[in-house]
Amino acid sequence: MIEDSLPPLSSEFQVPYRYTVQFTKGIFQLTNTSLQNFLISERKEGIIKKALVVLDEGLTLHYPNLIAEIKKYFQGLSSIVQLTGDIMVIPGGEECKNNPKLWESLVNAVDTYGIDRHSYIIAIGGGAILDLVGYVAAVSHRGIRLVRIPTTVLSQNDSGVGVKNSINHQGKKNFLGTFAPPVAVFNDLLFLESLDDRDWRSGMAEAIKVSLIKDRDFFLWIESNADILKSRNLEKMSYLIHRCAELHIHHIANGDPFESGSSRPLDFGHWAGHKLEYLTEFSLRHGEAVAIGMALDTVYSYQKNFLPEEDRNRILLLLKKLGFVIYHPELSANEKENLYLGLQEFREHLGGMLTIVLLAGIGKPWEVHEIDPKILAQSVDFLETYV
Amino acid sequence: MIEDSLPPLSSEFQVPYRYTVQFTKGIFQLTNTSLQNFLISERKEGIIKKALVVLDEGLTLHYPNLIAEIKKYFQGLSSIVQLTGDIMVIPGGEECKNNPKLWESLVNAVDTYGIDRHSYIIAIGGGAILDLVGYVAAVSHRGIRLVRIPTTVLSQNDSGVGVKNSINHQGKKNFLGTFAPPVAVFNDLLFLESLDDRDWRSGMAEAIKVSLIKDRDFFLWIESNADILKSRNLEKMSYLIHRCAELHIHHIANGDPFESGSSRPLDFGHWAGHKLEYLTEFSLRHGEAVAIGMALDTVYSYQKNFLPEEDRNRILLLLKKLGFVIYHPELSANEKENLYLGLQEFREHLGGMLTIVLLAGIGKPWEVHEIDPKILAQSVDFLETYV
Repeated sequence: MIEDSLPPLSSEFQVPYRYTVQFTKGIFQLTNTSLQNFLISERKEGIIKKALVVLDEGLTLHYPNLIAEIKKYFQGLSSIVQLTGDIMVIPGGEECKNNPKLWESLVNAVDTYGIDRHSYIIAIGGGAILDLVGYVAAVSHRGIRLVRIPTTVLSQNDSGVGVKNSINHQGKKNFLGTFAPPVAVFNDLLFLESLDDRDWRSGMAEAIKVSLIKDRDFFLWIESNADILKSRNLEKMSYLIHRCAELHIHHIANGDPFESGSSRPLDFGHWAGHKLEYLTEFSLRHGEAVAIGMALDTVYSYQKNFLPEEDRNRILLLLKKLGFVIYHPELSANEKENLYLGLQEFREHLGGMLTIVLLAGIGKPWEVHEIDPKILAQSVDFLETYV
Repeated sequence: MIEDSLPPLSSEFQVPYRYTVQFTKGIFQLTNTSLQNFLISERKEGIIKKALVVLDEGLTLHYPNLIAEIKKYFQGLSSIVQLTGDIMVIPGGEECKNNPKLWESLVNAVDTYGIDRHSYIIAIGGGAILDLVGYVAAVSHRGIRLVRIPTTVLSQNDSGVGVKNSINHQGKKNFLGTFAPPVAVFNDLLFLESLDDRDWRSGMAEAIKVSLIKDRDFFLWIESNADILKSRNLEKMSYLIHRCAELHIHHIANGDPFESGSSRPLDFGHWAGHKLEYLTEFSLRHGEAVAIGMALDTVYSYQKNFLPEEDRNRILLLLKKLGFVIYHPELSANEKENLYLGLQEFREHLGGMLTIVLLAGIGKPWEVHEIDPKILAQSVDFLETYV
């Protein structure tokens, strides 16, 4: 037989990725060299690269001069990088990920302006815009160099420094997407001043999450700075973002960056959080839903005798101190069956075995592969009446 | 300043990939264990994985029992893998990559059948189907495990064993796509019997190409087997495919798998080939266009005094002996300006500096960064009159 004489061929290789997250203030001020230095470091003799800038509409309302500032900033770089066409201003928020026409208009801009694989797409905005633009960059010409400039607490400490992108498809959150690291991320802390109180607070949920599963000292720091964080101190918030981003990045680089396994240890509080976002038709911010999800899994961890009562109380107290609401009526809706369905959906999105991260202590994650519906229901009841 | 106290964070990691290309005959015969062994090797205790099979319509016409055979094959595996829904039969050929509705119907099937990240999508067909289905698999849930069963010479020795996928967008070939390695490839040599003579021959162009830039001995082997290859000897063709795939895979694993640089050393003959495909509105097969492109770059290499005359003659003779036509009137159309435009488009798709692979000998690639339009025109004229 022919096949006996044709041995199998094995293909085995590693693809290296490297990017830096820089922290700055006023990135488009002419005296600010962060972005400039990065672009110069990538300069290639004799080539002027192109850059397509996509900007969150909300920012242009808060900073009426921003577009002019960006253009002026790039004028000084015109021997290295050239802005193509006009800056694209698009509406942010989850809704932008539901709109296939918006996605297509961005892909068409890549085509129209001749953005090639060595050009840049520079996305400036919150997590939803970064997700959408990141997906466009990832699939156009099989990958255009993406620079992210996250402008919210949540995107600066979590999604914007990671390796994922996505859009929603027919009502399914993040159904389409890829793993595609950016070439650089710039966290401009001044943009945080544009946030309303809900978004300022909401983004802290991921910092609490990562402290609970990875870093007890960080939890203690958040605890002792809760009041000043709530009162919008930018310096403390900058540290919170930096440490959260650091833990997030460390987890990606030392774990399973493109999630080939079934476990997602970073997803503490997220299974119920995701479900709540849907049940409330996204009237809850992601961080608000995750805060409730963490409260639920914290109480469940206690009820299952994994987590000491003292730790449970400290976690719930910190959430409340920062201004999070830790219960939502949708948790109890339809005799809690809706909530329980969320577990199944969570497993399906990842595939493989159900894996839920709970807590054995502050800073001590504890993986389980099943959830007891009775104890879950008791945990919901506990939260409903917790003051 | 705050930023002084917040050092940049560096993210650096490698993502490992590994897959095997197996050679077999009659992969869905019940006695054939190739696919079965692979699926068993990936088995996870207590989980029945799902598989969505997508099949090239042309194959069902040539093998009326194929669908029934596939279903029967999977019946025997039902404790490990379950076929979901019905086998999806879609039209093959380049046209399937132009149809956004077809893409969407496949994505919707992933949703409807609950295909998760640990399920399989199994694509059976020629290069276009593998490209399309591969793209669906790559972006659904950020990547579903893709098994490729290429059924043409071209897909078995080249595209189907590599790491790319794509669809066309608004008339731009491969505008959308990703780099996403499959989890396994099975080259079923019996499927080659379904090819017409054009497709049988056309796929050999990539083997000649890879021999010219990487392996003189392989060129000599093709040369000495040209007649028997042309007369459709399956055993010789199987060797040709195996060696070509081996060189291709070796190049990917030891080079720049996801093409982060500007050079594409595997693209000998392709810049003009791509342009010709467009100029002829895809009436030329990819391999036929590449054969002409190789002839052109061979003559150009000779005219520039890189390549000995003897080598030029041997290359042109081999192409003709296998039945390739090595000139097309579109090369000369519009005073050769159209052709020259192809160079610019080739550079744009890759970005960065123009890099064209020429030849300094058989098995000796030679990179240049500019093409002399006058010598290019002379090379076209030479081919036009070459007998």
